[in-house]
Amino acid sequence: MAAGRTLKELADYLGGTVAGDEGKTVIGVASLDDATVDQVTFLANPKYASKVATTGAGAVVLPPGADRHGRNAIVVANPYLAFAKMLTLFHVAPRPSRGIMEGARIGDGVTVGADATIYPGATIGAGVTLGDRVTIHPGAVVYEEVSVGDDVTIHANVVVYQGCRIGNRVTIHAGTVIGSDGFGYAPDGEGYYKIPQLGIVSIEDDVEIGANTTIDRAALTATVIGRGTKIDNLVQIAHNCVIGQNCTIVSQVGISGSTRLGNRVTLAGQVGVAGHLSIGDNVMVGAKSGIPGNIPSGSLVSGIPAFSHREWLRSMAVVPKLPDLKKTVAALEKKVAELEARLASE
Amino acid sequence: MAAGRTLKELADYLGGTVAGDEGKTVIGVASLDDATVDQVTFLANPKYASKVATTGAGAVVLPPGADRHGRNAIVVANPYLAFAKMLTLFHVAPRPSRGIMEGARIGDGVTVGADATIYPGATIGAGVTLGDRVTIHPGAVVYEEVSVGDDVTIHANVVVYQGCRIGNRVTIHAGTVIGSDGFGYAPDGEGYYKIPQLGIVSIEDDVEIGANTTIDRAALTATVIGRGTKIDNLVQIAHNCVIGQNCTIVSQVGISGSTRLGNRVTLAGQVGVAGHLSIGDNVMVGAKSGIPGNIPSGSLVSGIPAFSHREWLRSMAVVPKLPDLKKTVAALEKKVAELEARLASE
Amino acid sequence: MAAGRTLKELADYLGGTVAGDEGKTVIGVASLDDATVDQVTFLANPKYASKVATTGAGAVVLPPGADRHGRNAIVVANPYLAFAKMLTLFHVAPRPSRGIMEGARIGDGVTVGADATIYPGATIGAGVTLGDRVTIHPGAVVYEEVSVGDDVTIHANVVVYQGCRIGNRVTIHAGTVIGSDGFGYAPDGEGYYKIPQLGIVSIEDDVEIGANTTIDRAALTATVIGRGTKIDNLVQIAHNCVIGQNCTIVSQVGISGSTRLGNRVTLAGQVGVAGHLSIGDNVMVGAKSGIPGNIPSGSLVSGIPAFSHREWLRSMAVVPKLPDLKKTVAALEKKVAELEARLASE
Repeated sequence: MAAGRTLKELADYLGGTVAGDEGKTVIGVASLDDATVDQVTFLANPKYASKVATTGAGAVVLPPGADRHGRNAIVVANPYLAFAKMLTLFHVAPRPSRGIMEGARIGDGVTVGADATIYPGATIGAGVTLGDRVTIHPGAVVYEEVSVGDDVTIHANVVVYQGCRIGNRVTIHAGTVIGSDGFGYAPDGEGYYKIPQLGIVSIEDDVEIGANTTIDRAALTATVIGRGTKIDNLVQIAHNCVIGQNCTIVSQVGISGSTRLGNRVTLAGQVGVAGHLSIGDNVMVGAKSGIPGNIPSGSLVSGIPAFSHREWLRSMAVVPKLPDLKKTVAALEKKVAELEARLASE
Repeated sequence: MAAGRTLKELADYLGGTVAGDEGKTVIGVASLDDATVDQVTFLANPKYASKVATTGAGAVVLPPGADRHGRNAIVVANPYLAFAKMLTLFHVAPRPSRGIMEGARIGDGVTVGADATIYPGATIGAGVTLGDRVTIHPGAVVYEEVSVGDDVTIHANVVVYQGCRIGNRVTIHAGTVIGSDGFGYAPDGEGYYKIPQLGIVSIEDDVEIGANTTIDRAALTATVIGRGTKIDNLVQIAHNCVIGQNCTIVSQVGISGSTRLGNRVTLAGQVGVAGHLSIGDNVMVGAKSGIPGNIPSGSLVSGIPAFSHREWLRSMAVVPKLPDLKKTVAALEKKVAELEARLASE
Repeated sequence: MAAGRTLKELADYLGGTVAGDEGKTVIGVASLDDATVDQVTFLANPKYASKVATTGAGAVVLPPGADRHGRNAIVVANPYLAFAKMLTLFHVAPRPSRGIMEGARIGDGVTVGADATIYPGATIGAGVTLGDRVTIHPGAVVYEEVSVGDDVTIHANVVVYQGCRIGNRVTIHAGTVIGSDGFGYAPDGEGYYKIPQLGIVSIEDDVEIGANTTIDRAALTATVIGRGTKIDNLVQIAHNCVIGQNCTIVSQVGISGSTRLGNRVTLAGQVGVAGHLSIGDNVMVGAKSGIPGNIPSGSLVSGIPAFSHREWLRSMAVVPKLPDLKKTVAALEKKVAELEARLASE
């Protein structure tokens, strides 16, 4: 189904150069082990370099300096990125627009851009604005007055609460909830009085959000997800958080209210971040860590509570030896007491 | 849109007293920094007391004894609670009842109270009872024989399994699942035999539950969420748990089966509680902690496994120094052995 | 409603033998404390053995060797399993097939087996195959080209993405998402380029999956959930994972990409497993643990990072004593220095 491409066309698409037969045509991409003569493969990990000689592929995408073993090759700076781009080129079919389908529920005053697809069973509330080439899957519910940019895909059973803003080229996977009330209550003596959550969530361009994630609306202003940030499944982002650009937030992370992340922050799986913190640019946090305080830019931290990842590794190596260490110290105490007694008696 | 209120009216609503112009009218609430002459602001944190002199607000809500700097003021015991109440008064518009809308799916024998709103795409199973002023959003699915009290809001794509009971003034946010089967199996040699989960979930009055949370039905009786308890997003409450009144359960907490919480318990984010435990009243558990045993009332605990929070802080301060501690002990061992050898040779 | 059974019939169903009146009829099952003369009860925990003498039940299911105190009894190897089977027999009513109900959305080329129930508001995409006796609840969305086996129950608002395969006798609870895109991106200098996720999820026979869980599709091949495995609520299973047979994966566990679990693995609540790992058969991981490396078959581990559970318990017992240990070591250092000084001066 995918059209064939010559190596020359492929090299132009990838920003690389051909070594070998520029006119050779390939129709797909596969691994070094699995590729056939009609397919292109790639060498991303140097430890597989010898497979370039033996792969059945018709061509190999290689980094500069790698031995092409006489094979047709495309030389690019980043073969793994090239692999992702070739997968897209060969194997991702654009979904044709199907328009507003019968059974979609469209509220009053909704505007829909060109070439949209709104499936049966999707609900679009009054006053919503949808951009061009938007796809809204069945069961998704977009409350009133939401604005959605161009080229956005909202998967089945996503919910976007009223007034939230979604930029361009955003994908939201199934079951995710955007704009539910922040968790804010004022103690009133016996119980809790709900603090109205009057703000919104604003999702900037090029964000992707996984399945069953929750992002709460701000109390008064906006919870912000910065441009290019990628969020995995089952992540919790509380009210008033401001997440920077190109962050990577892995599954089951929780970020408490009013915390700000810089750009290019990576939070590994199941990390928890306390509220009202400032996390700098390029910070990396190891899996399952707990962040109780501000983190300066460029830090790599782990642990509960977190400190330097390198030091954490060294400390954790001691933990299994703690019972022995305790015994050793008890024995030393006894020996020192004996030495002291002996010297005192001399 | 919100109607203006005189300071006298506002003070009566808040249970406070006016100092200054009782007839002054305000039309909204904003922060000390942002408020304008038509708005009221509030002083909740004493460190901002000097801003009372300079705020642009037309009036300030203050605690007793705070300097009003000659401004119009309303004196109340709890300005933060007053802020929440004023937000509600000025900025939360009641949603007018829209009735059972076309496209709502209503099963046989359903009873619906006065002034309800059931949106298109909501599904109400046979035999369900809904109270007055109930709002059921699109995509919510209420299985058979559920009972729902008055003034309940069920957001989009919530699922309530059969037979569950929901009290009055309960709000359930989008995507939450109430009454799915508890995780119970009997090993049968090779694999697992499912233990039928025949009980229900009972949610008492004034509970709010966040988005994408899960509360499992009991095996035989009822999983209970006590009156006034607030549950955040992505929380797991397993079968047969009994949660007390006015508890605060923060995002991503997990509570294993048959555990009982007292009243006013606070579980911070990502806490895990083992099964069949008893957690006393007023217990507070620090973020990410793991609770393996019963906790007496009034305790403040942290850690995995958890112990006294104060002692946990002191222990965690030692963790980064464990490698040094281990080296110090090794050096001491060597020195003590040398001392022993020297004394032995004398 | 449930038909009565003689003890003889019940013993045959359970694979046990009657002691006492084989013709005695019972109509339900209840606990030792609650059962009445028309009900059967069971003794699973030896510490309640004395209640066999005093229970009001008409018969007791017992393990071999237990004293029946003259009561009617059924002797079985595993009374707890028998309890689960009796609950099913007496108290789980089969749901009669209701066919494809009006308001169900069925795509082109869908095939549906015998005796299915597809509720109003369910969406079945084009080319989907559904087996016999399948139940699809309201709001569930099955994308194109999914195949579903016999005797499968898909609860409300579940989403299954395109092309995924579901075996026989599988139950998926509300809000769970099967087949959302894996979290894969190639850094492209400034930001991230999405790696197309072209594989599927394959769920084998006899799997049960809880509510609001997420299982991502593979990048190229299949994420696999092995036969008989039970998965709780809010679990995350990342792309390319292969989960073995009869595993037990408790709530809020997260398993990173490309990790393989053997058979009969138990992961307790909130465990995290890193990516590209191999976890052997019969491994048990304690609650909240973090697994950074491969685990050999038969291991029982805990901790972050995890090591032997038995050693972890011993280490954790030292943690609260770390401040004292540190003080003791400091005191020893001082004493040893004094001893050294004294000996040096002699």
